[in-house]
Amino acid sequence: MSDTQAQKQFVEDLTDQSDDFSRWYTEVIRKSQLADYAPVRGCMVIRPYGYAIWEHMQSLLDRRIKATGHQNAYFPLLIPESLLALEAEHVEGFAPEVAWVTHGGKEKLEERYCVRPTSEAIIGHMYSRWIESYRDLPVLINQWCNVMRWEKVTRLFLRTAEFLWQEGHTAHATGEEAQEEVLRMLEVYRDFVETELAIPVYAGPKSEMEKFAGADMTYAIEALMRDGKALQAGTSHNLGQHFAKVFDITFQDEQGRRQYVYQTSWGLTTRMIGALIMTHGDDQGLKLPPHVAPIQAVVVPIWRKPEERAAVTEFVNRLRHSLEGRVRVWVDDRDQYTPGWKYNEHELRGVPVRLEVGPRDVAQGAVMSVRRDTRAKESIRLEHLPERLPVLLEDIQRALFQAALEFRDQNTSRVTSVAELEAHFAERRGFVALPWKDDADAETAIKQKTGATLRCIPLDQKPFSGLSKDGAPVALFARAY
Amino acid sequence: MSDTQAQKQFVEDLTDQSDDFSRWYTEVIRKSQLADYAPVRGCMVIRPYGYAIWEHMQSLLDRRIKATGHQNAYFPLLIPESLLALEAEHVEGFAPEVAWVTHGGKEKLEERYCVRPTSEAIIGHMYSRWIESYRDLPVLINQWCNVMRWEKVTRLFLRTAEFLWQEGHTAHATGEEAQEEVLRMLEVYRDFVETELAIPVYAGPKSEMEKFAGADMTYAIEALMRDGKALQAGTSHNLGQHFAKVFDITFQDEQGRRQYVYQTSWGLTTRMIGALIMTHGDDQGLKLPPHVAPIQAVVVPIWRKPEERAAVTEFVNRLRHSLEGRVRVWVDDRDQYTPGWKYNEHELRGVPVRLEVGPRDVAQGAVMSVRRDTRAKESIRLEHLPERLPVLLEDIQRALFQAALEFRDQNTSRVTSVAELEAHFAERRGFVALPWKDDADAETAIKQKTGATLRCIPLDQKPFSGLSKDGAPVALFARAY
Repeated sequence: MSDTQAQKQFVEDLTDQSDDFSRWYTEVIRKSQLADYAPVRGCMVIRPYGYAIWEHMQSLLDRRIKATGHQNAYFPLLIPESLLALEAEHVEGFAPEVAWVTHGGKEKLEERYCVRPTSEAIIGHMYSRWIESYRDLPVLINQWCNVMRWEKVTRLFLRTAEFLWQEGHTAHATGEEAQEEVLRMLEVYRDFVETELAIPVYAGPKSEMEKFAGADMTYAIEALMRDGKALQAGTSHNLGQHFAKVFDITFQDEQGRRQYVYQTSWGLTTRMIGALIMTHGDDQGLKLPPHVAPIQAVVVPIWRKPEERAAVTEFVNRLRHSLEGRVRVWVDDRDQYTPGWKYNEHELRGVPVRLEVGPRDVAQGAVMSVRRDTRAKESIRLEHLPERLPVLLEDIQRALFQAALEFRDQNTSRVTSVAELEAHFAERRGFVALPWKDDADAETAIKQKTGATLRCIPLDQKPFSGLSKDGAPVALFARAY
Repeated sequence: MSDTQAQKQFVEDLTDQSDDFSRWYTEVIRKSQLADYAPVRGCMVIRPYGYAIWEHMQSLLDRRIKATGHQNAYFPLLIPESLLALEAEHVEGFAPEVAWVTHGGKEKLEERYCVRPTSEAIIGHMYSRWIESYRDLPVLINQWCNVMRWEKVTRLFLRTAEFLWQEGHTAHATGEEAQEEVLRMLEVYRDFVETELAIPVYAGPKSEMEKFAGADMTYAIEALMRDGKALQAGTSHNLGQHFAKVFDITFQDEQGRRQYVYQTSWGLTTRMIGALIMTHGDDQGLKLPPHVAPIQAVVVPIWRKPEERAAVTEFVNRLRHSLEGRVRVWVDDRDQYTPGWKYNEHELRGVPVRLEVGPRDVAQGAVMSVRRDTRAKESIRLEHLPERLPVLLEDIQRALFQAALEFRDQNTSRVTSVAELEAHFAERRGFVALPWKDDADAETAIKQKTGATLRCIPLDQKPFSGLSKDGAPVALFARAY
């Protein structure tokens, strides 16, 4: 990774999306150093550049989770097999894909533990001990942690044996409050993903077939990747009283009666980094939305003659100083690379704005800014930069969302019969909207014939008005990650 | 936790420290809802109040870790047995206390994985792939994560099978740079623990016997708990080239020669929450340093007659508004508890300042503040509160450090012979300073006779000047957690 010539080639060798999207995806992740394969089956290493994106996501989402009254906590990594097994649907859904701890030190354990694939069971157990009265409700807890699902086929960020996420787990006195919470958090996810990641989503319930193992109802936000495949970007489950009954989570109501609580859970994972890559990236590499970009603007100092260096450096220092605390700036003053090489690398890595500073710019008291998304250039005077750059970054954030929205809308088709839907998927991808009544057999048949699944029934049916003739809501189908 | 009478008793029943410190410790954790036992051998649940302390610690330490040039990343939870086994001392130190994953789903794995007890092995493996040239150095990476050590005897926060920590792992071109890094991070820990947790520490190298499995040299900061036992509060290891040689981590230097890198690692864990409790707590409960207290000031509105309620509530709302963004305030307006009950609970939970607001305070346009540490009262006018309260909180932060420092110094004895040291530990606890030359046999003998271990050889020898007659540095011994 250190030989200039080799790395230049490295950047230029990026496969085109249209040639092989999947290969483009893996290459861009490894070349931009977002992540790497680990010597552990199906696991990855999130490298500093990728992890910094996750840190920005965490910070922006955590703020929203706390603003809606939730607190963070931490529950154990390991779950006793007997506890996981209590909820029948839950264990059936997860047992085939968990990693089992059977030995501690040199001893074989009496009962084996699974590495948490999700924490409903362990948290349900604790809630049964903590909750006694209606005054203890609602319980609104979130956890940021690692989870493990022993997947057969894995892919960086999208499907790895271990991934990072947050999982919210709440308990309520009534089913109405639980349902309000489910929708509140779905809306938190929608707002977070659209505002901060610039990824437009459809939000709504899943079908019975696609719901979470152990839930009454699952809601999801669904995004469209640039290869036309959908990606589930966050889920919010109404667990009803399923777990309350098996874990005996009860409270005394105001009349002194014992009641079971109503629960919800909701999660969003590091796969959103994958979504970010596949929503915005192009043949030159990543395009990171400024809100989560580790570097929002990279400064490339340029000089030919040694005597130019001092003036450029002094100017760059003033520039850096003027942006402190406003914009995440990195000055790329590495000697071993040419400016042109750096341009390529920062485009590959998706830095939203490049600021070029050469002797002529210094003479004019200005920098040349270049947008990653449109490549538009603009000379900005140094004294205007602290005001202009944040505006430019917000423009880029909006433009990325707008471009993704147009792509998504252009790739959302409307049909009125299963036959049309099948004809669509024989030739194309994208979302297909079809008026739908829950029917597991028909859903299975579609999946077998087309590979497409029911992604969600959008809560907002306005974009599809007129499509349904009998009042049945429209469901969205797509092939998905 | 909902019956008023029961909870009042709950608070009042707290065991005195002098009666049974260990019992006081466990009770105060459970009653203040910092943590709870989990249904998993040796594991705990960190409840929201405890986790919020950890979040403040993370934020304050992470800032320092980044300010010294490090970036965060994430490496896999599982480590293949063959990788752990490469460094002989390391595997010998850790293999007896790791949890083993042997099955994925229904399949037995070809090679078993351990749940990371620490990540030198997996990170060493990745560094060997990432580092090629001197230009790639130094590599300065930190990771926040969970780790697992299958301990026989466990205790909330102090020693649990699973705990949370950060682990820094760096690679350098020269041994000098690595040693600078080791001392830099030791100083970061000292500054963090003293400034933010108000816990005074001795900082210095460990003996050969007490160093980390696989290190050339281990440095630690050591604190003193109120029962006279020492607690290791953070460690910084110089790994030399041990791991570089077994994981083949090499770089090409400026002359084109292949060289092994020099490495460091350093960590600080959730046991620091335990240290916080045992450094500052008293018979009434916790005393949290304001810098990491989830609630820095609790407001208790007081009224007897219904007509007083509106005025008090309106005043409290103005108060809350005036402190927004300056102080972490919680208004405890729960109806089911009396003000007196709330005072007890917030003292138990260690909230640094209580603000009482009754009709007479409202009439005077003031609140009555009560410090948790000294119980000193002070009437503060509402308009002065936004300026006065932060100052008061800083006073408390300093006073807690000062009290802990006095206690620590009063409990640091100076002796000049092993016989005196043994006589000390026959009667008392605390730190004992003794001039020392590394001698594993003598160290083992002391441990067997007194239960005390060599905690560190303080880098700052000034407090012990004159004790050593032959120029040997002073070492500190103590019984320890």
